[in-house]
Amino acid sequence: MSFVATPQFMTFAAPLPLQSGASLRGYTLAYETYGTLNADRSNAVLVCHALNASHHVAGVYAGQEKSEGWWDNMIGPGKAVDTERFFVIGVNNLGSCFGSTGPMHVNPDSGRVYGADFPVVTVEDWVDAQARLLDALGIETLAAVMGGSLGGMQALSWTLQYPQRVRHAVVVASAPNLTAENIAFNEVARRAIVTDPDFHGGHFYEHGVIPKRGLRIARMIGHITYLSDDVMNEKFGRQLREGIDLRYTTQDIEFQIESYLRYQGDKFSEYFDANTYLLITRALDYFDPAREHGGSLTAALARATSRFLLVSFSTDWRFSPARSREIVKALLDNRRSVSYAEIDAPHGHDAFLLDDARYMGVVSSYFDSIAKELAA
Amino acid sequence: MSFVATPQFMTFAAPLPLQSGASLRGYTLAYETYGTLNADRSNAVLVCHALNASHHVAGVYAGQEKSEGWWDNMIGPGKAVDTERFFVIGVNNLGSCFGSTGPMHVNPDSGRVYGADFPVVTVEDWVDAQARLLDALGIETLAAVMGGSLGGMQALSWTLQYPQRVRHAVVVASAPNLTAENIAFNEVARRAIVTDPDFHGGHFYEHGVIPKRGLRIARMIGHITYLSDDVMNEKFGRQLREGIDLRYTTQDIEFQIESYLRYQGDKFSEYFDANTYLLITRALDYFDPAREHGGSLTAALARATSRFLLVSFSTDWRFSPARSREIVKALLDNRRSVSYAEIDAPHGHDAFLLDDARYMGVVSSYFDSIAKELAA
Repeated sequence: MSFVATPQFMTFAAPLPLQSGASLRGYTLAYETYGTLNADRSNAVLVCHALNASHHVAGVYAGQEKSEGWWDNMIGPGKAVDTERFFVIGVNNLGSCFGSTGPMHVNPDSGRVYGADFPVVTVEDWVDAQARLLDALGIETLAAVMGGSLGGMQALSWTLQYPQRVRHAVVVASAPNLTAENIAFNEVARRAIVTDPDFHGGHFYEHGVIPKRGLRIARMIGHITYLSDDVMNEKFGRQLREGIDLRYTTQDIEFQIESYLRYQGDKFSEYFDANTYLLITRALDYFDPAREHGGSLTAALARATSRFLLVSFSTDWRFSPARSREIVKALLDNRRSVSYAEIDAPHGHDAFLLDDARYMGVVSSYFDSIAKELAA
Repeated sequence: MSFVATPQFMTFAAPLPLQSGASLRGYTLAYETYGTLNADRSNAVLVCHALNASHHVAGVYAGQEKSEGWWDNMIGPGKAVDTERFFVIGVNNLGSCFGSTGPMHVNPDSGRVYGADFPVVTVEDWVDAQARLLDALGIETLAAVMGGSLGGMQALSWTLQYPQRVRHAVVVASAPNLTAENIAFNEVARRAIVTDPDFHGGHFYEHGVIPKRGLRIARMIGHITYLSDDVMNEKFGRQLREGIDLRYTTQDIEFQIESYLRYQGDKFSEYFDANTYLLITRALDYFDPAREHGGSLTAALARATSRFLLVSFSTDWRFSPARSREIVKALLDNRRSVSYAEIDAPHGHDAFLLDDARYMGVVSSYFDSIAKELAA
């Protein structure tokens, strides 16, 4: 049983200028904190979330079974990121459907629910919003910023947007940008949502419907890319759902893997917002710090001054180790301090959320050394 | 300019018993032949097609521009499979939407268009139907049976179902069965089609609509798996469709890869049948000759007596070289004659349809040696 976490909310009156040129006014961020901020406010760790996650990073909600935060195995008292030594902050990103201002909230400019009118937000915009939250919490400098996948992109972006405010960045199972194949999978998922007749151009809320068909397909596609081929073969292989006899059916379930994917899709469509899915996959597509530097990641990362830990997983084909090594190389080109661990794990991209002794060991050692720095 | 091809049709009155236990009566097969059957009827080559193809393997249709058959680069006068030496037969599979009896035809049992009631057909059923066509054409023994991808599965199955009728089998970019990941991609595509409101449980013909949304998504997913990550990065990378400025949009096209996928999806939804898509992906899922042999491919292939050429492509992640090597190993376990070429090609699964000097060279040499055998 983990500790009890409590979500908090902070509302910002000053408009947030966005990369697109638009701005967002009167927004709220949902966040949680674990542990205690020390006297010199130097032990804060910001945790950035990926596509299907939130500010609920660790702990459980009072009275709610199975409500562990998404990185509860990593963060908590005595864990790799020890909340007895660090003050950990989880913050929900703008555009999300889990508490911070998003497409299902009312647009103060129109008095109508945002829906598809919610402005396009980028990794850089999220980082700006997170920085304002830290300002409000009185935290000037982070001991570390960390995240996996899209969360890792935010951690990397922190070191470029606010280099002086980040001592360490922990970037797990991430990439310096999406490949064409990554964008392609996102695009198919988005098309499935947008072409669902219940999407109504993104204004489905006022029609009292939800584009569940599209969300299911989007989640099924996503799920395939989170797992490795190996782990799918091991977990499901060609196992039939019902005994050993083939049923010969095109529309009903025959194989276990089909049953699993349909279940994941159904569950997701019950709680995730369609506009949020579009926004978050677009933030993934757009992230590309090298873009303004003629494609040179080395030039882009010259701004970073923090120290880095990068972690990748051998069977992750969504954000392969080669992508993490690109970041490592660009940092080394700039003579930055970088630790890099490539974990031999069978689980594909999902590995960054799972328990693995070597993975947890690497992160734990890294945070031990940060703690020693703070104590020095 | 290629030679002119003419589709032919043959109707079979005797019912075809299917693996599922059902049977199909009064069916027609569309086919084409190129070249001349020799006097002792020994130079016939049967070409089996994959998901999105037909009996139109080579040549062009009179008066139709850009109507080259899908393997026109491989098959024709003076080509790797030389129609001046071989009598080549292309046959459209049952359940297809390109000429042979399929879901859009009338079910003689009900007087109603089959739609979703078209019986589930397997690779083995297709091979049985092809064998009947050969019977009708007076061909007892094939010089070779060949195919790529799902076509390769049919070629392999020929050597198991009719070992005495096949002298050579050419199995390109294929696999002894689908992995869980392969099935997963098929399942997502099927769900996209089946959950399209215009699908009407598979009886959309009588509603005068087509589940184009689902077909588009299915094709987009398929297309991603046909290409390698490398070739996608090379062809599209992160290129924007319109100049260099980001547009910041979640629903409109931003990247070239999106534009390409949407185009492929749109085109496909104009001509492909939704029920056919379900049937063909299911035939892929079901193919698994080792299944009845406790999972032993070696035991399954013991029946095969023909000689084999297997070809795979280094960047094919849909049917990876490792899958072809499983077949090679099982044949060698049985002391069969096998040639195997692993072609270093950047194009992924699609490579089996493309020109590549080494690939064409391997196939050409193999058919040269078959021609010499015939002449001996």
